[in-house]
Amino acid sequence: MAATPSLLYAPDLGASGSVLRLAREEAHYVARVCRARAGDIVEATDGRGALARLRLTSVGAAVSAEVLAIERIERKRRAWLWCGAPERGRADWIVEKLAELGVERFQPLECENASWPAGAARIERWGRLAVAALRQSRRVFLLEIRPPVTVEEAIASMERPAVCRVGDPDGHPAGARPGGRVSGPAALEIGAIGPSGGFSPRERERLNAAGFVPTRLADARLRTETAAVSLAAWWAAVGAGKSPGGESS
Amino acid sequence: MAATPSLLYAPDLGASGSVLRLAREEAHYVARVCRARAGDIVEATDGRGALARLRLTSVGAAVSAEVLAIERIERKRRAWLWCGAPERGRADWIVEKLAELGVERFQPLECENASWPAGAARIERWGRLAVAALRQSRRVFLLEIRPPVTVEEAIASMERPAVCRVGDPDGHPAGARPGGRVSGPAALEIGAIGPSGGFSPRERERLNAAGFVPTRLADARLRTETAAVSLAAWWAAVGAGKSPGGESS
Repeated sequence: MAATPSLLYAPDLGASGSVLRLAREEAHYVARVCRARAGDIVEATDGRGALARLRLTSVGAAVSAEVLAIERIERKRRAWLWCGAPERGRADWIVEKLAELGVERFQPLECENASWPAGAARIERWGRLAVAALRQSRRVFLLEIRPPVTVEEAIASMERPAVCRVGDPDGHPAGARPGGRVSGPAALEIGAIGPSGGFSPRERERLNAAGFVPTRLADARLRTETAAVSLAAWWAAVGAGKSPGGESS
Repeated sequence: MAATPSLLYAPDLGASGSVLRLAREEAHYVARVCRARAGDIVEATDGRGALARLRLTSVGAAVSAEVLAIERIERKRRAWLWCGAPERGRADWIVEKLAELGVERFQPLECENASWPAGAARIERWGRLAVAALRQSRRVFLLEIRPPVTVEEAIASMERPAVCRVGDPDGHPAGARPGGRVSGPAALEIGAIGPSGGFSPRERERLNAAGFVPTRLADARLRTETAAVSLAAWWAAVGAGKSPGGESS
């Protein structure tokens, strides 16, 4: 067997030379899906930028592996997506696609026109979707999923400098270039997408005052989840020219 | 009531002055969702570029309307998405999102590594999803959905000139500019995305020989459906700066 096609997720990688026991889902993948054997080499990440080569030391119901080497990968692109609640049933794929597209942080917004349904089950499911996307896309940074906050709270706690946009069918065209007020390596991009009912006028004013540029993502209005994923896809396409970072292979 | 928030779909609009009877789903939307009354003004499209103002003449179980005026809108942006089969259950949202993002044609590809499951029910469902997306995004061009063909057949029947790309994690970065070999108003863009198992070497060779430039859409590998929607989102963002066309309002 060559390296496993998907990257393993091991949040506690330890140091080079240490032996770790894979979590149940990773063990299943290695033993049953890839049919790996003791001695095979696999790759794993801690979701915080480490990419490790592991040698499997035992493969059975439990799987153990020795850490051969760890490489630290620097994040080249930082993007946060703030997002109001979409229509029912459409949030899961926002999470999955943002994770695949390499967004750093998903920040649900509690909006005047729409609330996120509460529920620990949902947060756990989102976490699993983010890990699955990390494995599949072989990324070394796990999407960070935050609890919902209001627009005001999100603005109060945001990092600066950042290039800030708010999705708006009447805004400035996104156009071909990223543009914005700040640029440079690892500049933070923040995009705010309204809920299915749209941002309220007061929320729009606050975003405006905080420097969020109204930005048109398409030549028609988009659903919340489509706008969120479109913005992430556009960031990814524009960032695809940079030297690899935030990913492996 | 102002104009209905969503555009109505009426494939047989007739000429200005004619009276038309809305199809069942449109009638339900007007009468029950919008609670419109006789005399109210609504907007409709035939999905082929016509945007009509209608006056409702009777509203009940059946809904009739008089065509007051018809405007023909020219398509400013043309994009075809060729796509191998994604993993099970992920095709519906490709169709929905391509329709929202204003793609002209969705061409499923029968690939060596993956077949599209047959089924009239699927094609009908895709048609309904495309119409729903047209209404919701207020577009005047309906996504055209074609029966699956092989890569060879798709190449043999393609229009030229066209800017052709094939999604490839090792390809040239999509970067910030559309680029490509042909440009100008209404230049056709064609993007080919491999199935979940990827294009075969032979399929890649054929696409290469036909001028499809390997293009990197993100700094990591993407699932089939993510790559398809990402490319459509990128086309939409790059095209969002053009004067309105292919959409209303």
